[in-house]
Amino acid sequence: MQIAILGCGNVGATLGARWAALGHTVVFGSRNPAAEKVLEVLERTGPRCSAKDVKDAIQGAEVILLAQPWSAAEATLRSLGDLDGRPLIDCINPLKHDLSGLDLQGAESAAEQIAVWAPTAKVVKAFNTASVKVMNNPQFGDQKATMFFCGDDAEAKIKVAQLIGELGFDPVDAGPLASARYLEPLAMLYIHLAFRQGWGSNCAFRMIKR
Amino acid sequence: MQIAILGCGNVGATLGARWAALGHTVVFGSRNPAAEKVLEVLERTGPRCSAKDVKDAIQGAEVILLAQPWSAAEATLRSLGDLDGRPLIDCINPLKHDLSGLDLQGAESAAEQIAVWAPTAKVVKAFNTASVKVMNNPQFGDQKATMFFCGDDAEAKIKVAQLIGELGFDPVDAGPLASARYLEPLAMLYIHLAFRQGWGSNCAFRMIKR
Repeated sequence: MQIAILGCGNVGATLGARWAALGHTVVFGSRNPAAEKVLEVLERTGPRCSAKDVKDAIQGAEVILLAQPWSAAEATLRSLGDLDGRPLIDCINPLKHDLSGLDLQGAESAAEQIAVWAPTAKVVKAFNTASVKVMNNPQFGDQKATMFFCGDDAEAKIKVAQLIGELGFDPVDAGPLASARYLEPLAMLYIHLAFRQGWGSNCAFRMIKR
Repeated sequence: MQIAILGCGNVGATLGARWAALGHTVVFGSRNPAAEKVLEVLERTGPRCSAKDVKDAIQGAEVILLAQPWSAAEATLRSLGDLDGRPLIDCINPLKHDLSGLDLQGAESAAEQIAVWAPTAKVVKAFNTASVKVMNNPQFGDQKATMFFCGDDAEAKIKVAQLIGELGFDPVDAGPLASARYLEPLAMLYIHLAFRQGWGSNCAFRMIKR
């Protein structure tokens, strides 16, 4: 699969490296693809990854991952043009700068706002409720971490669930995109537990069933 | 421990029966303690449980569980008088009638609103993120379901964590009462998974760590 990753931060670089190692082709989209930070990411992620301007990175991509800060999302999405109904994975947590809560600026959820900014994409929320360490390795002994996802388009969700599962997570479909109203607060709970309550970033949510 | 449970619904009756079976004394508080519904609950919960008027039920109680519908909470709490700094467990999910979302009516969370209505109690949010089936038996094979709780008073949280643990849950401290802003949406996620996404009510959240 050809995957465009918009943003070269920790989450984008980690997921890109893992998908590339699994055989996917990854193109990072950056405003400055020759920046030292981007080159360092490419050094880490290996030969199946490259970096281009944002508009070029999405050419031919079957799936697009938006892995930028919340404050950058609107400008990026408005610059992309027609996305032809392709899946757009939103892993953004709309956090206040001091991590004290969500900063939705009137939206019901970041994912729903992103769907407004990218009306020609099929938005799927995912990869917002676990640390980078867990994304790098979702295996906990004999158990897999759960990765929740949600979206309104069934086909897009199938593709994203596949990408989640290939990384070693248990993908759990949380329903329509409006369920981002629950997955974004879940990320705040995760952050709170990991960084304020002493769990650290080697913890994860798991759905259990009997 | 003497525990007052305000409300004889499914959650109150289930928790009351289990705590009574563990040796605690449980007094249900009801507007009509002789109602057939209340008598049926007592028949089920056994001799360590009784029912009284709400004001009488809290006399001598070391812990109070508010297990009423969201719409009834304010009137009940305002009628209780001084609660002397006792722990008040809020297990309420402020749901819209069609279960389509939370109905906070301007509050940041039900728990924080309840703390305003009961200023002399130490409010702890708990028992809102699992089904009655899971409250009845939190064991999943060799794993325990997690029960998140949060509150601003350390002593009250120690007592509530003990009551959670005695039932067989893994108690997980989610921090201050304001974390109810994350635990209440978590309940919506649970409801969505259980009743819309096919998981059923024999599922639970679990925090895993390595």
